[in-house]
Amino acid sequence: MTNYSENFNLTGESALKSVFRNHASGIAVVTSRTNDGEPIGFTASSITSLGSNPPLVSLNIAQGSSSYPHLQIGTKVALHTLDQSTLDLAKRLAGPKENRFDGSEVEGPYGLPIFEKAPAILIGEVLKRFEVESNAVVIISTEMALVNRIPEQPLVYFQRAWHAVGEKLSDKD
Amino acid sequence: MTNYSENFNLTGESALKSVFRNHASGIAVVTSRTNDGEPIGFTASSITSLGSNPPLVSLNIAQGSSSYPHLQIGTKVALHTLDQSTLDLAKRLAGPKENRFDGSEVEGPYGLPIFEKAPAILIGEVLKRFEVESNAVVIISTEMALVNRIPEQPLVYFQRAWHAVGEKLSDKD
Repeated sequence: MTNYSENFNLTGESALKSVFRNHASGIAVVTSRTNDGEPIGFTASSITSLGSNPPLVSLNIAQGSSSYPHLQIGTKVALHTLDQSTLDLAKRLAGPKENRFDGSEVEGPYGLPIFEKAPAILIGEVLKRFEVESNAVVIISTEMALVNRIPEQPLVYFQRAWHAVGEKLSDKD
Repeated sequence: MTNYSENFNLTGESALKSVFRNHASGIAVVTSRTNDGEPIGFTASSITSLGSNPPLVSLNIAQGSSSYPHLQIGTKVALHTLDQSTLDLAKRLAGPKENRFDGSEVEGPYGLPIFEKAPAILIGEVLKRFEVESNAVVIISTEMALVNRIPEQPLVYFQRAWHAVGEKLSDKD
């Protein structure tokens, strides 16, 4: 076999960034409340299923994020999936904090602020937090969901831009 | 505010599955070697960036997976991004174990079996394993990368099928 090691010419931070810029990820909006009852929320590209029995989800977040101190064990959270018709939510919850809640939210389970126009909303609570360097993997135990519709074009993040899912290439099996 | 709690009519495993079936995720192929030097690999929809300084990646996997015992701390791994032109790799590495390596692999850094036609390949090693119920979050510290090309249509998994990323809707800013 040829040895291709010499072609690996990117290292460290630039290696990771160059690869993940071109790796698509699903987009979701996470909401919760502070202990004082203030709504908090953010757009996340790191929401990933971690098994269904029991139902668990992982969320990667920087410890320096303004939301991280509020995601304590036991805190209730709402995870919203997004599609082309809810691109405005992805953008608004990734923008300035003071503009993230504009009154379009309604009260969901546990008084959580939810955006009812999202294709689906999953409710859970923080089960564990694993801190690694300056980041954290937050494990969320999920409890119940509302599915409003099957999105035709869910949102993905790719090359620093919002895209819709396109052509179906093949069934898995 | 209206209370929408009564609309959350899915619970437990079916709530999680109904939501994640409609949440798109990027697709990658992970390869490594057993202690005996045998190549192992699998298709993963849970590869997620966990921060770039230092560069870290998370991988969610069932502890019952045949690959999990081989992903010990310190084990070197190769993460391959995929696109429409490498759909065959996604399918083959998600299929029967005996067919996953067909001789098209070459020897990469640390003797890792790599598929050189992937758009990009990121090399790292297992840094930590967090076990939660019957699953695990494997943290990979990444070291170097080879970017062969910018994929026009990276692969995503959505509604139990392989899709290509489609239309760009908006830049993030």
